Amino acid sequence: MKTLILSLMIAAASFAQTQAPVPVSPEVHPDGRVTFRVRAPKAAEVTVRGEWMAAAENLAKDESGLWSVTLGPVPADIYSYTFSIDGMTSLDAFNNRIKSSSRGAGVSVLEVPGGKMHEIRGVPHGSVQAQWYSSPSIGATRRFFVYTPPGYESGWARYPVLYLLHGNGDTEAEWGAFGRANFILDNLIADGKVRPMLVVMPFGHTVPPNDLGTGRARNTELMEEDVIRNIIPAVEKRYRTAPGAKNRAIAGLSMGGGQSINIGLNNLDTFSWIAVFSAGVGGGGGAAASEAFEKRAAAVLADKAGTNKKLSLLWIACGTEDNAMRGAEQLAAILDKHGIRHILHKTEGAHRWGVWRRYLAELTPMLFR
Amino acid sequence: MKTLILSLMIAAASFAQTQAPVPVSPEVHPDGRVTFRVRAPKAAEVTVRGEWMAAAENLAKDESGLWSVTLGPVPADIYSYTFSIDGMTSLDAFNNRIKSSSRGAGVSVLEVPGGKMHEIRGVPHGSVQAQWYSSPSIGATRRFFVYTPPGYESGWARYPVLYLLHGNGDTEAEWGAFGRANFILDNLIADGKVRPMLVVMPFGHTVPPNDLGTGRARNTELMEEDVIRNIIPAVEKRYRTAPGAKNRAIAGLSMGGGQSINIGLNNLDTFSWIAVFSAGVGGGGGAAASEAFEKRAAAVLADKAGTNKKLSLLWIACGTEDNAMRGAEQLAAILDKHGIRHILHKTEGAHRWGVWRRYLAELTPMLFR
Repeated sequence: MKTLILSLMIAAASFAQTQAPVPVSPEVHPDGRVTFRVRAPKAAEVTVRGEWMAAAENLAKDESGLWSVTLGPVPADIYSYTFSIDGMTSLDAFNNRIKSSSRGAGVSVLEVPGGKMHEIRGVPHGSVQAQWYSSPSIGATRRFFVYTPPGYESGWARYPVLYLLHGNGDTEAEWGAFGRANFILDNLIADGKVRPMLVVMPFGHTVPPNDLGTGRARNTELMEEDVIRNIIPAVEKRYRTAPGAKNRAIAGLSMGGGQSINIGLNNLDTFSWIAVFSAGVGGGGGAAASEAFEKRAAAVLADKAGTNKKLSLLWIACGTEDNAMRGAEQLAAILDKHGIRHILHKTEGAHRWGVWRRYLAELTPMLFR
Repeated sequence: MKTLILSLMIAAASFAQTQAPVPVSPEVHPDGRVTFRVRAPKAAEVTVRGEWMAAAENLAKDESGLWSVTLGPVPADIYSYTFSIDGMTSLDAFNNRIKSSSRGAGVSVLEVPGGKMHEIRGVPHGSVQAQWYSSPSIGATRRFFVYTPPGYESGWARYPVLYLLHGNGDTEAEWGAFGRANFILDNLIADGKVRPMLVVMPFGHTVPPNDLGTGRARNTELMEEDVIRNIIPAVEKRYRTAPGAKNRAIAGLSMGGGQSINIGLNNLDTFSWIAVFSAGVGGGGGAAASEAFEKRAAAVLADKAGTNKKLSLLWIACGTEDNAMRGAEQLAAILDKHGIRHILHKTEGAHRWGVWRRYLAELTPMLFR
């Protein structure tokens, strides 16, 4: 009898153990505070650092080896964060939402609900489609994503196309996943603020991402060739696109902003709409960067009347806390000097996806009008 | 002058530092050996455990705090693996290929080239499309993926549809990403072995994945409701699908295999083709599981003639090293007893994605003929 009871106790204990709830991290509380948890019984120090934080914060360990800290309230938005476990940067093992990276395992994602602009609302949803294409320019089969607006499948209309480029270290998945381009467009289309359009999101690293320090100029050149010769033809073969430059826009953030201004100005018969998020003349600004830009764009800058006629919009958006502001202002100054129409849109914000989602929501209502 | 030289030396040193190559992991050598690397200067023990390995292997630390080990040769295939750093399971920070999980950050992915079946070949490629739909059954907006074969966009044909379900802990992304369903189909279609078809990959967790111990039966019921009432109508509204049960198949692995046999047999007017990978009567097999299955399927088992007429194929595939074999054999025994036509396909292999990719490549040539 004693043995039976003991067996039952052991069984109950091991049942309780297997039924112990898996820790939740990040746990977003109703008031916007967020609890982070890390299982690291042997670690001496665990910290968390998120996009919204000025500095890392320490987690505290309980007797079971589970570290935790509650922070905030954190303003409603989508953020990336990482843990540092004894100095080693680490993803949140309990969180299955990851912002991918072209360089490594990426970073964990926190969403604090209430960011109406990018949330899944009860409106018709478009789709996000992975397409593979052959790129002789790069010597590989590559992938781009395409947002198709609600109703695309069942209709006959042809759509204008926004080519939307990511930043250094990102992948072609970022604008659709972490950037929420699809839900932002779904919401704006449902509200009647944006003309239904296709959004094409290619991969902007044409040389190995880790070679970018020395290979940036080559990367932009190859990207231009890939967009013009391979990506646009693949898109226009597979999707119902409206023809001509007035129905094509190119926009991008950071590295992709530099690609957009260079590829756009160099191909005004292909793109009539150009937008630059958090970028400018390139290379962090400075006199040499301005000079190089003016040299690259000399023909377009010299033909003021022709360029202004071809350009429907040249929109440069940058946050006042963003180091890219200097280069953005230099770009605007060069355009001013040559009389090329543009808008320099200065906003609050740093070099962050939260800012770029807003820029996408501000840009797209202006396009194709 | 001394100061200048010192400055130059410091500049050169810091340049060298910023230019130090980022470690590569996993590094696949031409002979199939693989080197894994972990930056963990403070760790006391680092091991790697991969799907192809019988046991974890130790990494060794160099003077810079970089741990490494070279293993293999590893047979050509796609595998998942993780590190253990002082007992803490961790992704490979240098590797941007991750198999996602419904429960946490997922696992890292190693691909050893040469697995012709699932590799990107120079053939026409289909696309993989994320679609969102409203599920009143579950009370959420959910996502499924759809593989469309090459040429879908430019043609008029209507296609048969394979509904393809994932395993416990997976997400709706797995069959398309880690499972390579799209490239497997691209290759088989190019070789003329498979009839072009759509493949729909829904999310099979309808209750929180961590509740699955107690909620498995409820999960299958809700999944059935979601597939029949929400997913199929959403697919048939947005895609050119061929009508009728003879043009619909349902297949899945492990948990998704259990869902496929239950949903399939319960809806023979919807699905004429059913396939079960590495699953069977459910619950790990045993007399009670057989009894429960026979009870659930009583009407279908009793109507031998009607069921055999409706069923185009009932295919049960399982590996001899897979614990699911017992349940698969029990399922086949029940079908035998009631005279329901089926194929029990026993192969080499364990409970692994490498086996399930092969099963997909073996199943699809039989479908819709």
